[in-house]
Amino acid sequence: MKAEEFPDKYKVAVIGSGNWGSVAAKLIASNTLNYNIFHDEVRMWVFDETLPSGEKLSNVINQTNINVKYLPGIELGRNVIADPDLHTTVRDANMLVFVTPHQFVDGVCKRLAGKLRGDVEAISLIKGMEVKVDGPHMISSVISKQLGVNCCVLMGANIADEIAEEKFSEATLGYSENKEVAERWARLFATPYFAVTAIQDVEGVELCGTLKNVVAIAAGFVDGLDMGSNSKAAIMRIGLNEMRAFSKRLFPSVREDTFFESCGVADLIATCFGGRNRKVAEAFAIHGGKRPFKELEAEMLQGQKLQGVSTAKEVYEVLESNRWFDSFPLFRTIHEICIGSIPPSAIVHYKAEVHPSSLQQKSVS
Amino acid sequence: MKAEEFPDKYKVAVIGSGNWGSVAAKLIASNTLNYNIFHDEVRMWVFDETLPSGEKLSNVINQTNINVKYLPGIELGRNVIADPDLHTTVRDANMLVFVTPHQFVDGVCKRLAGKLRGDVEAISLIKGMEVKVDGPHMISSVISKQLGVNCCVLMGANIADEIAEEKFSEATLGYSENKEVAERWARLFATPYFAVTAIQDVEGVELCGTLKNVVAIAAGFVDGLDMGSNSKAAIMRIGLNEMRAFSKRLFPSVREDTFFESCGVADLIATCFGGRNRKVAEAFAIHGGKRPFKELEAEMLQGQKLQGVSTAKEVYEVLESNRWFDSFPLFRTIHEICIGSIPPSAIVHYKAEVHPSSLQQKSVS
Repeated sequence: MKAEEFPDKYKVAVIGSGNWGSVAAKLIASNTLNYNIFHDEVRMWVFDETLPSGEKLSNVINQTNINVKYLPGIELGRNVIADPDLHTTVRDANMLVFVTPHQFVDGVCKRLAGKLRGDVEAISLIKGMEVKVDGPHMISSVISKQLGVNCCVLMGANIADEIAEEKFSEATLGYSENKEVAERWARLFATPYFAVTAIQDVEGVELCGTLKNVVAIAAGFVDGLDMGSNSKAAIMRIGLNEMRAFSKRLFPSVREDTFFESCGVADLIATCFGGRNRKVAEAFAIHGGKRPFKELEAEMLQGQKLQGVSTAKEVYEVLESNRWFDSFPLFRTIHEICIGSIPPSAIVHYKAEVHPSSLQQKSVS
Repeated sequence: MKAEEFPDKYKVAVIGSGNWGSVAAKLIASNTLNYNIFHDEVRMWVFDETLPSGEKLSNVINQTNINVKYLPGIELGRNVIADPDLHTTVRDANMLVFVTPHQFVDGVCKRLAGKLRGDVEAISLIKGMEVKVDGPHMISSVISKQLGVNCCVLMGANIADEIAEEKFSEATLGYSENKEVAERWARLFATPYFAVTAIQDVEGVELCGTLKNVVAIAAGFVDGLDMGSNSKAAIMRIGLNEMRAFSKRLFPSVREDTFFESCGVADLIATCFGGRNRKVAEAFAIHGGKRPFKELEAEMLQGQKLQGVSTAKEVYEVLESNRWFDSFPLFRTIHEICIGSIPPSAIVHYKAEVHPSSLQQKSVS
């Protein structure tokens, strides 16, 4: 059935088909079949590529129902249609799920501007920021401004492959005003193994999802240097507190409770123990910072992108332009390690609250 | 030199000589040598035992300067004196560090009552609660009440063996009123690799240190069942939130910020990834709950005690007597798994915020 036959049903398009995009399409596809308010078909935009077999990825997905490159072995649902054409993907849709690498968002939005249905709602699953001359822009606000649409976000402790295997996970949906729209998005994503909580703090949720990748780089350094559980926990704690402070400086509306949601402490934990940022940063530290991240990324991630290093750079630019270095020593240090200015071992700053130098010392005999 | 020759110097006794007690003695001993305000000698009470060699543990510690049973390979400092006699250990001391297993605190305090110096201050490094007819009692308040002394607490992401190896760690010192006393304790413990932050929330700090062991049991179940990073992060997040809610119900004075200190989120992380509670709970889950904790503890811990299981029972008793089960589903579930009422797999409750049953379902063809 075509969307125009059921004009009152919500029609979903997923823009992006990487690892997380494919898992999102799988979650969504099970719900559009289950709930009458949604049109069954989920159209997924594939930035097409030719596989070693000579076939187009989009064709293989439509033939096998599996994204053989980015989510091998997992059926997406027969109602997921891979589409290499961005415009036909979104033409009938009024629920747009953005899940591209964050450096592609600008270009995609430019191509979509003025070509969408009038009743479109958007949600971003993308981690990252854009830092421009006038300051940092969250991805959701880039989408929102360029397309003139409302944009929610979905973040959380969501290692994609585990959700694909239907292991229990939680996620946080951030919205700005319209609770009804947020609940519709939650309905589209939530399954018995994927628990979605909606909270009214779109900036807080998105900043958590974005900044945790920076902390995960630090966690990877600690792992690579074999500093132990206490050091790793300390660095993650300091990182969480810099995430809180940074978020509140950018957006005073950010809520403290947000950091206790899945997008906050839980995503930080999952990413610092199980994610790709941690893994590549560990390798970087093991090699003593001698092999650049670009090289390790290409070698270790099979085409997936590393968000933490570029976000660390963006955060550094914000700190620099606002003269905030003193308040964010960990964020500053992470970027300086990433670009090779200081060694990975600099990640642990010994900052005892009691400074021995201020006390009378014994002359030890 | 004897303490009475320098009556103005603080004299420290460490009550307990297990793994953490020995590391604490090592930290303290380096500082009593360094700072003039402390008497050099650190007397450590050893609940004596005969080693396989036939020698007394206390004698071996004094001969080798190493606690060969509970902290092998690490020199404690020549100014640490192992003493099998509780009364001579504390006789000259006015700074008492309590670091026994929590089930021994009552008995130790009974033996000490009325036999201490008039200017004694205490600090507890012990995790656990005592649940009596009139409600729960924190260890610091048991010490405080039985001995009529002020009692601070020191908690944090402190896997003992890593601190023994001088890997970087943080800790939180909780105090109730006297900041000057708290700073003196911080001075006694802090080293360049052990950063101590003092905060005015003794109950919050102690409850963090106590309750995190319960959450670590849950984390161990998730590991044993191979549920993945997302599930583990979700369970830890839910656990942290139950810790916050439970602490605030018991003591409304507990501060939200405390959970962002080392004693809170950092200790939770370290304990859920590196500690003994996690390890034994993992084995329990791997065996499908068929082998009781007592048996696994004896087999896996070489005489160390498992706090999480007994604390889970104590928490359960508090929930039961206050009819708080509905607000603490995770804490309740953990204890019920520990005693074998329900299987380890019950640790993951699928609690999607959006309940499919409340929506109109499609009849799937």
